[in-house]
Amino acid sequence: MRIDNLQYANWSEKIFRQMREGGLDAVHVTIAYHENFRETVLNFERWNRWFEQYPELIMAGYEASDVDKAKETGRTAIFFGFQNPSPIEDDIGLVEIVHRLGARFMQLTYNNQSLLATGCYEAEDTGLTRMGKQVVKEMNRVGLVVDMSHSADRSTIEAADFSERPIAITHANPHAWAPALRNKKDDVIRAVVENGGMMGFSLYPHHLKDKSNCTLEGFCTMIAQTAEKFGAEHLGIGSDLCQDQPDSVVEWMRVGRWTKEIDYGEGSAAAPGFPNMPEWFRDNRDFGNLENGLRNVGFNDDEIAGIMGCNWYRFYQNNFCAASAL
Amino acid sequence: MRIDNLQYANWSEKIFRQMREGGLDAVHVTIAYHENFRETVLNFERWNRWFEQYPELIMAGYEASDVDKAKETGRTAIFFGFQNPSPIEDDIGLVEIVHRLGARFMQLTYNNQSLLATGCYEAEDTGLTRMGKQVVKEMNRVGLVVDMSHSADRSTIEAADFSERPIAITHANPHAWAPALRNKKDDVIRAVVENGGMMGFSLYPHHLKDKSNCTLEGFCTMIAQTAEKFGAEHLGIGSDLCQDQPDSVVEWMRVGRWTKEIDYGEGSAAAPGFPNMPEWFRDNRDFGNLENGLRNVGFNDDEIAGIMGCNWYRFYQNNFCAASAL
Repeated sequence: MRIDNLQYANWSEKIFRQMREGGLDAVHVTIAYHENFRETVLNFERWNRWFEQYPELIMAGYEASDVDKAKETGRTAIFFGFQNPSPIEDDIGLVEIVHRLGARFMQLTYNNQSLLATGCYEAEDTGLTRMGKQVVKEMNRVGLVVDMSHSADRSTIEAADFSERPIAITHANPHAWAPALRNKKDDVIRAVVENGGMMGFSLYPHHLKDKSNCTLEGFCTMIAQTAEKFGAEHLGIGSDLCQDQPDSVVEWMRVGRWTKEIDYGEGSAAAPGFPNMPEWFRDNRDFGNLENGLRNVGFNDDEIAGIMGCNWYRFYQNNFCAASAL
Repeated sequence: MRIDNLQYANWSEKIFRQMREGGLDAVHVTIAYHENFRETVLNFERWNRWFEQYPELIMAGYEASDVDKAKETGRTAIFFGFQNPSPIEDDIGLVEIVHRLGARFMQLTYNNQSLLATGCYEAEDTGLTRMGKQVVKEMNRVGLVVDMSHSADRSTIEAADFSERPIAITHANPHAWAPALRNKKDDVIRAVVENGGMMGFSLYPHHLKDKSNCTLEGFCTMIAQTAEKFGAEHLGIGSDLCQDQPDSVVEWMRVGRWTKEIDYGEGSAAAPGFPNMPEWFRDNRDFGNLENGLRNVGFNDDEIAGIMGCNWYRFYQNNFCAASAL
């Protein structure tokens, strides 16, 4: 079983076919960065059209059993997530609405302060807000997973501790390995995994040691070290693959509508666009390389199966349903 | 099994308890008259709060099997519907979105011309519009039932003929019995039932012979005559119960935001508010009276079971799922 727990590609039949070539049984796809509720609904609608157009390649995923169904029918189950809470606006009632529509992960922040918590680029981190606590409780109730990939340290630790259900860092790497602002310090990872949470490793070059030149061995050695510290059962992949996106999209991700000035995020004025992917992970067809890399650094079959998909699958089983169904 | 296929009450714990007293296994409730998409979502949200507050009385209904589940657990399954296509605005993609959120009936018009068809109060009836045909096809695909209760004759007949799945008149009576503008002529009823559709009889006094003074015997005799003409298996109840609503609500239903002038609809300047219900059908507790009334005019047990709920149940079984699941 193979699951990639974060992608934001410029979707096309080509990419859906590559998901099949790469043996992906499920992919968690981002459908909102700065979109408000109505704009996010338009993104759900776009996916409905793709499900209608490519029924032999992809299907909507709502629960873990949909991964099995996809596997049995040779398709990829698509699960939705938001990298910002903008789709719920200031309305806690929208948490259940977006869950019903298929959202399964929601970041409490995207780099900046949100109504709910503090993002990793803010100077001060004040933790969960009043609304943030209410929304985490509501997300716990309906089965929408708290994702803190772009959040600041204190906010992430508070969310992990306050949440009554496990939370996730869907796409990031350890800060000690690659000191990107977005990568996670050990005490942050520990707070997440000690509460039953998951960490998905990112292949986005800005999160990698030596960026686009990062080696497969270096990446897999980092995973082995993280497994030693925190346990392999809490680890998975969240590739952050942004395949075929024009650079205007990374600008939207960084700037949204919140500033009139340019913000380069993890890039720079000299390199404002999407970075090149490492040559051993160009797109969905290269998940086999990852699996080989994990084997070469000494993981056993069970551990490899877990990291490549079964750990996320188990997490889906426990965290996508209503709390009342547990 | 008892199903009321249209109510629009001022919902409260009292009314939910009366549904239980009346033995209602399912009720189709209106959640939009003139609301746009975002406003309709707020109405879904209100119902989500009621489901959370009164889990022992009501539950969300999505498919026919939820009526069985409600019956087994001593609750009433609530199915949603719109009396106007305003919730989908000008966006055909919203058809699948509102279906996913739980909408199972949508009127193509509410008295006036809509983007889709002509309402029963317009001077000219031009039938299904270009968008109307596209939307009916999409409703057929996802399992959202076309409801023509407030539509004009030609539009209704065209919808019944054009739709590839049966349609419904959820709440109206025969025009020959009570010549309200909203009641249906025989050729309209025939077009609906000949295509496998359903007609739900309304208890709203403006649709009754002698209005609030209509007798139970008169009402049930009318049902018997309709059954003779069109077959009892196509008939059910759609009471149009508007319990505990303030008169401001009937003004909203009639006027919405489409006019600055007052429109009395089926009322008048002398009697602008909600009319009094007949004494034998005050609220949900009186469904037993209806059942007795049907028996007294000569219906047999199977016919009574059908009209009181089983006919709608069978209709739900065939028409709430995606066409691809048939």
